[in-house]
Amino acid sequence: MGFIVQKYGGTSVGTPERIRSVASRIAEQARQGHRIVVVVSAMGDSTDTLLELAGKVNPNPSDREMDMLLATGEQVSIALLAMALQAANIPAISFTGAQAGIRTDMVYGKGKIQGIDADRIRKALDRGQVVIVAGFQGINAEQDITTLGRGGSDLTAVALAAALKADICEIYTDVDGIYTADPRLVPGARRLDVISYDETLELASLGAQVLQSRSVEFAKKYSVPLRVLSSFERGKGTVVMAENEVMEAVVVRGVALNCAEAKLTMLGVPDQPGIAAAVFGALADNHVNVDMIVQNTSEEGKTDISFTVPRSDVKRSLSALETVSAGIGAKGISSPRNIAKLSIVGIGMRSHTGIASKLFQILAERKINIDMISTSEIKVSVVIDEQGAQDALRLVHQAFELDRLDE
Amino acid sequence: MGFIVQKYGGTSVGTPERIRSVASRIAEQARQGHRIVVVVSAMGDSTDTLLELAGKVNPNPSDREMDMLLATGEQVSIALLAMALQAANIPAISFTGAQAGIRTDMVYGKGKIQGIDADRIRKALDRGQVVIVAGFQGINAEQDITTLGRGGSDLTAVALAAALKADICEIYTDVDGIYTADPRLVPGARRLDVISYDETLELASLGAQVLQSRSVEFAKKYSVPLRVLSSFERGKGTVVMAENEVMEAVVVRGVALNCAEAKLTMLGVPDQPGIAAAVFGALADNHVNVDMIVQNTSEEGKTDISFTVPRSDVKRSLSALETVSAGIGAKGISSPRNIAKLSIVGIGMRSHTGIASKLFQILAERKINIDMISTSEIKVSVVIDEQGAQDALRLVHQAFELDRLDE
Repeated sequence: MGFIVQKYGGTSVGTPERIRSVASRIAEQARQGHRIVVVVSAMGDSTDTLLELAGKVNPNPSDREMDMLLATGEQVSIALLAMALQAANIPAISFTGAQAGIRTDMVYGKGKIQGIDADRIRKALDRGQVVIVAGFQGINAEQDITTLGRGGSDLTAVALAAALKADICEIYTDVDGIYTADPRLVPGARRLDVISYDETLELASLGAQVLQSRSVEFAKKYSVPLRVLSSFERGKGTVVMAENEVMEAVVVRGVALNCAEAKLTMLGVPDQPGIAAAVFGALADNHVNVDMIVQNTSEEGKTDISFTVPRSDVKRSLSALETVSAGIGAKGISSPRNIAKLSIVGIGMRSHTGIASKLFQILAERKINIDMISTSEIKVSVVIDEQGAQDALRLVHQAFELDRLDE
Repeated sequence: MGFIVQKYGGTSVGTPERIRSVASRIAEQARQGHRIVVVVSAMGDSTDTLLELAGKVNPNPSDREMDMLLATGEQVSIALLAMALQAANIPAISFTGAQAGIRTDMVYGKGKIQGIDADRIRKALDRGQVVIVAGFQGINAEQDITTLGRGGSDLTAVALAAALKADICEIYTDVDGIYTADPRLVPGARRLDVISYDETLELASLGAQVLQSRSVEFAKKYSVPLRVLSSFERGKGTVVMAENEVMEAVVVRGVALNCAEAKLTMLGVPDQPGIAAAVFGALADNHVNVDMIVQNTSEEGKTDISFTVPRSDVKRSLSALETVSAGIGAKGISSPRNIAKLSIVGIGMRSHTGIASKLFQILAERKINIDMISTSEIKVSVVIDEQGAQDALRLVHQAFELDRLDE
């Protein structure tokens, strides 16, 4: 008998038929005697419909009223799922974020969970009810409804699992787990049985967004094991958990490719203190997320600074840089170039040497030029030409033997 | 500078365009410096859409989950109306029933308001905000959402007006006031400037359902003046208030016709104690609302009992009566006959005599046969043939000079 927190996304409860199918899945587990708390998102595209309505009465609505509006989406889902469970003769009760005791700070639109008063949930579980909780929402100190921002329903589930000390938090989604690489790009990609929090975080930041980073960080902080599963097929999914010795034996857990960044270079910058601060300060002020940064060796007191930014931020970056360029006496800015970032991730890198050089060698053998390099304790990223990047990904996946069945 | 509680029904806020139009109307009043609390219903047919969704997951959903589901309809409306007001530069804030402090009993689906903790509303008004409250909903002692049943939004508005001691409660609807008769049936019908609570209650029970009886009773109990207005046109509407001497001068305030009842007769019933109790007890047990009852004079210890019931209850009534018929030794039950009930209403009847006989005389002159008669302090109702009933209505309206412009 276990204690399970589950989360179903909007697609999983997108129609009355799907809600009934989710209910029959939960009913099966409930009949096995598990304690079950279910977190649900708004049905399918109902959030978009609400956003559209809002746009028609106010092009720039206040965050408080937007949260009041959007929170109805999840409230509809929980009521319907509770009804569907009751139709399957499973005692069930739905709770809004407020009723579930999910307290947040005062920020509307992207509230942070400050605590959970889970008494009411515990009492319902003790009565033998399946508890259905509205994801993505909480209540602040003014008794106002707040929403938690993107990926908020995952966060609700993880936070509830932590507060209730559940055995596991199951995240039902439209894929059946986390893979060694994006299966759409790498035919040999394998579903992982297990992965560490840190590896998941690195992969998420590299563009493999099965789970939102906030939720994984939360799970890591409170040691909540996550299981990523498909809501449409049966399977074991992938367990995300704290690393252990067995996991460390695997050097590279996965590879990822990010083709959404561009490279910019500030040319002929005086090699003196304060310059980097001026350049990246200007970008930060304009809300540009800079990813990788490389500074060339200095020649005659001048240097070039290259960095990558999201392609959608290129325009904003250029206008910010033009302002600082003259002030710091730079020669100018190179044309932005679309690049690809290829990364290998694995906690085993901590204890194994030579992983980065193996990557460089694999690429060199195929005459793939490396433009920039960035490393962390458990990750190596290289910037390469966008052209041929997908081939490079498949090559690296194979060279690190990620397509082998045994871990 | 006044203190106004307003209520807009579902049709008034049925589309984003209508919400904007309601907002501009409220904005106009807010700029005049009034304190304004607005109660809104769910948009147009959104409640039907929710009911349909529920039906697809559970043909017999629990009342608690149904309230959880339906309450989202009003929550959408309040958020959108607050946004629309903000777009018009009017400070506004929306409150759910719970946030507005509307406490109900534990009955789901038709909760009764037990009290209102209006502190939060008062504070918002003091800050200069227009307060938008979700109609039709409250919160019970378990912190669960309850809905108030049919006409619940009107009730929310009246209860708030009473709790806040507002000057008036304005009910915006799709008609521009209360009329001396149904204008669709009587071309000469006039909008009343003023009408008493009791007259409104009698007219509502007679089928002229501009206001739900529960709301009028509540308004009467707490002496809240109501104003019924059109949300689509400008006008003074009709004020519903406590009666005064001026109002008593009018003998007949309005006439009404109800063509939704049928007459049943229990034949050859022994004229002895307990018989009426047996007959009407059986009907009450089967949830049949009996309206008028007439018992004929007894002949040889036998009598006939005639009464009217809603046509929709005829089947249920017959099966209930068949069971008791033999038990009490009745001869049988006559075939049900569709009838019309014509009524005149006016508080002036209390102090004026001869009103009933004037009505009988008008009908007699036109050879209209009266089948049953029922009177109250401020009402005379007669049952007549359905055929020609609308002509009779127009005749009576004219004979009591209700089509004259001056009151």
